[in-house]
Amino acid sequence: MTSLKDYPGVASEFMRYRASVMLSHLAEHPFDLTKEGNLNPQRLARFCSEACGYKLLYGTERIDEEVMRVLIDLAQEAQAIQKMEKMQAGEVMNYIQGYPSENRPALHTAVRDFFDHPNQGQAAVEGTAKAKKEVEKLKSFIARIDRENRFTDLIAVGIGGSDLGPKAHYLALKHLQKPGRSVHFISNVDPDDTAMVLRQVDLKKALVLVISKSGTTLETMVNEEFLRRHFHEAGLKSEEHFISVSCEGSPLDDRKRYLECFHMWEWIGGRYSTTSMCGGVTLAFACGFEAFWELLRGCNAMDKVALQPDIGTNLPLLGALLGIWNRDFLHCPTLAIIPYSQALSRYSAHIQQVDMESNGKRIDQKGHPVDFDTGPIILGEPGTSAQHSFYQLLHQGTTPCPMEFIGYKQNVCNLDIEIQGTTSQEKLLANLFAQSIALATGKGSDNPNKVFPGNRPSHILLAKQLTPFTLGALLSYYENKIAFQGFIWGINSFDQEGVQLGKELATRIISRMAGQKGYPQGNSKPYPLGDAYIKYLESL
Amino acid sequence: MTSLKDYPGVASEFMRYRASVMLSHLAEHPFDLTKEGNLNPQRLARFCSEACGYKLLYGTERIDEEVMRVLIDLAQEAQAIQKMEKMQAGEVMNYIQGYPSENRPALHTAVRDFFDHPNQGQAAVEGTAKAKKEVEKLKSFIARIDRENRFTDLIAVGIGGSDLGPKAHYLALKHLQKPGRSVHFISNVDPDDTAMVLRQVDLKKALVLVISKSGTTLETMVNEEFLRRHFHEAGLKSEEHFISVSCEGSPLDDRKRYLECFHMWEWIGGRYSTTSMCGGVTLAFACGFEAFWELLRGCNAMDKVALQPDIGTNLPLLGALLGIWNRDFLHCPTLAIIPYSQALSRYSAHIQQVDMESNGKRIDQKGHPVDFDTGPIILGEPGTSAQHSFYQLLHQGTTPCPMEFIGYKQNVCNLDIEIQGTTSQEKLLANLFAQSIALATGKGSDNPNKVFPGNRPSHILLAKQLTPFTLGALLSYYENKIAFQGFIWGINSFDQEGVQLGKELATRIISRMAGQKGYPQGNSKPYPLGDAYIKYLESL
Repeated sequence: MTSLKDYPGVASEFMRYRASVMLSHLAEHPFDLTKEGNLNPQRLARFCSEACGYKLLYGTERIDEEVMRVLIDLAQEAQAIQKMEKMQAGEVMNYIQGYPSENRPALHTAVRDFFDHPNQGQAAVEGTAKAKKEVEKLKSFIARIDRENRFTDLIAVGIGGSDLGPKAHYLALKHLQKPGRSVHFISNVDPDDTAMVLRQVDLKKALVLVISKSGTTLETMVNEEFLRRHFHEAGLKSEEHFISVSCEGSPLDDRKRYLECFHMWEWIGGRYSTTSMCGGVTLAFACGFEAFWELLRGCNAMDKVALQPDIGTNLPLLGALLGIWNRDFLHCPTLAIIPYSQALSRYSAHIQQVDMESNGKRIDQKGHPVDFDTGPIILGEPGTSAQHSFYQLLHQGTTPCPMEFIGYKQNVCNLDIEIQGTTSQEKLLANLFAQSIALATGKGSDNPNKVFPGNRPSHILLAKQLTPFTLGALLSYYENKIAFQGFIWGINSFDQEGVQLGKELATRIISRMAGQKGYPQGNSKPYPLGDAYIKYLESL
Repeated sequence: MTSLKDYPGVASEFMRYRASVMLSHLAEHPFDLTKEGNLNPQRLARFCSEACGYKLLYGTERIDEEVMRVLIDLAQEAQAIQKMEKMQAGEVMNYIQGYPSENRPALHTAVRDFFDHPNQGQAAVEGTAKAKKEVEKLKSFIARIDRENRFTDLIAVGIGGSDLGPKAHYLALKHLQKPGRSVHFISNVDPDDTAMVLRQVDLKKALVLVISKSGTTLETMVNEEFLRRHFHEAGLKSEEHFISVSCEGSPLDDRKRYLECFHMWEWIGGRYSTTSMCGGVTLAFACGFEAFWELLRGCNAMDKVALQPDIGTNLPLLGALLGIWNRDFLHCPTLAIIPYSQALSRYSAHIQQVDMESNGKRIDQKGHPVDFDTGPIILGEPGTSAQHSFYQLLHQGTTPCPMEFIGYKQNVCNLDIEIQGTTSQEKLLANLFAQSIALATGKGSDNPNKVFPGNRPSHILLAKQLTPFTLGALLSYYENKIAFQGFIWGINSFDQEGVQLGKELATRIISRMAGQKGYPQGNSKPYPLGDAYIKYLESL
């Protein structure tokens, strides 16, 4: 699956790090969690770190003192923290050396750097100033919305980063939703996505938020037009209902067509845009501006943790190193992210994007094919429900899948039930803890079907309660963890060239379909493969 | 990751099949989809099969005539169809030879065998008769609900198979929902899951459906009690609002506590229970009895296809063989299931359970650890949204991930928009087709970041429209595909011993938590690992 053969004899920088060589050796005999007594309370206490209200409990990973020491060496050899400093200061991080590339900063941390000790990098200072203006604009806009009370429903139209992050965070904070408010999401070009929302919403009271960085995203443009026609058919003026988030100067940045236009910038990747206006408008509409502001505060606090030179308390970097150990040295191809929190029901889907789109790469920043494995394949559903779905494979399947658990001491709705001495919240956490132990220690049996091989790595992020602040800290934890992995691997975590080919071919097939109806075909050359598939459609 | 070393020198039956040996050789040089001209319209036409309105288009898999011939040999050597006949006839399939096991049939096909040529096996005939009685009971019950018009909302309480299948299928058919009806699902022991539903529903008009095969599932029992208390606090008699689905004689089979009690039986696994009353009550309440009946008809039609001795048109078996080729011979650890249909937004989550819980196994039915890889790790979200999430990794990551696409010519809501000569539905399908081509052929470039390695296997299930009938056929396709894989691997796809250890440890930790509050501790021995975690909770 790796491509060493493409560059015989030339190992990548990552594989040439002294620490990587050491880790390869250490991985031949990783710590055995199944051995009687090896997993014990002292070990759990030793491998525990803390920041922004989160404890990272990683005693159930297959690491020991030596592995941790060498992982920290790896971070230092790769200059992980220095690269994080550069990123947060606004240096150009999104590039491939010697080849045309997006060639720009990845400065999503700037859009929440409004609190203590803001970054002094020039680009960061400028970015933060621009972002602050948008935040102020949002505050006024929401105040106006509240005052005028015209809108009960928000329809958010966006796809990818303009959809998954806002939706996951909206659901996480939905218990804070203002009475009488509701949010609907449309992302898919499938017309059923829009049609089902149209059935639910009274357009007279609906605000439509169109989110597209470029203002040209196919799905979003089509769905916007779809909605506008329905507004017009209902006798409503769409320009009095539609607002937008896009780059300054994009086709969506047009106050004639939009009641309000919020801005983002090229230096914020879609998947890193939750804390920009992409997420801000939805969260502030639904839960109030203060909730969004607290989210930013939590994010910013963890961004600062990501700069801490003491790696033992730099949670995102620790998480990144544990992931690299599992991915490149224990050779696990996948990662399950399991929040034991129903409020985080779509959180794994968001992190699935952030991680797989950032680190699913095959070349390093020098343009060489990598000779090691980059980002894992991510899956995840909330626990305990997931236990009753796919944990069978996690315990007894043939491919070990590392797990990242997220848990909270308290629930968010302030409603619980005690049965036989424990609350549901306690039962939830007991299950989380039990799983991390069971996966690690396994269990022998005379019945081969009751044998649990154990040694399945996992760790837990544990905090007191999911609040806007801790939700923000969690988002920043993952964003920075993923960026750290990219820094250590030496890949570009901020572009997504891999989605282009599919887009190009789709455009050709769409053009061909239009051509068959007599529309001008534009750039559509004869395309036998597309035509073959179109023939199947006709035969149905 | 496999465990040959556990039984040195003794290869499993699966690895000893002549076809398996041949396939291992053939896999050294799998068909190269990237070579100019190799993927062409003739190939797409050749590797196409059809049943129940679905076309299976698999020219974009890394197979050729010889591989297909040997895969069919494999099915014959493993007696796949004979085992399917036994399963559908009601023979004991859920067993581990020589060890205590559930030791019973897996007869979910019987609960929909109401149409042409019903199975003549004695157990199947008996099962179908019992199931028919429940279906009739459901029909009357729904007629009464419609007549009395007391209930607008159904709250379905269940977890795992009692939740994922019903929810995925309800969402798939939601466009058919009767006016004024709505369904809510509660699965998680997280109290927030119930609390958020309580905020949305007027209990006076709510019917609560409690689903648990054993009537003892922790999460479901807790959430039932949680709801009952709220009914009583609201001055309502819960026994006039609650109905149940469980095995005859279970604690839920009690007409004093439930308005109606529907039955299932030990021989239906939870994950295979969508077409039993587990799914039936919800679907019939929301969309009408006829929709559920059509779903059963579609399921049954594909069940019959699974018995066809001509493997070339036995879609579920073909799908199973393609999966085994990718899993065991091309060594792909994962599988992405991507419906290009928003109505199937939670379908991948359902199949993730059916597949991973069925085939995530480490021993064969003789009780020997396997020396090959069993079920893959499954993920999936609907396209085109997924394209903007994790397709970057699918195209350019280091671990190839086979893909199963599902698509339909027509949308379900009968509402679409034509822009620049194509409808949204056409754009949706063009994207599906484009992805299958792009993944297969890849693309070269002077810019290494624009290189697509290609040879990423995929296939498409394509039908005219998602209807209750085709939805049923799709469910049966997957259920039977997964069962076929188990038959060929020689594993037991119908038990789930792997979930037991976590449950046991959770019970001990819960008991410990209760003990700390002075409750009698039952079987709770001192449990230092659980205690260590509880200490972390206290420190938060």
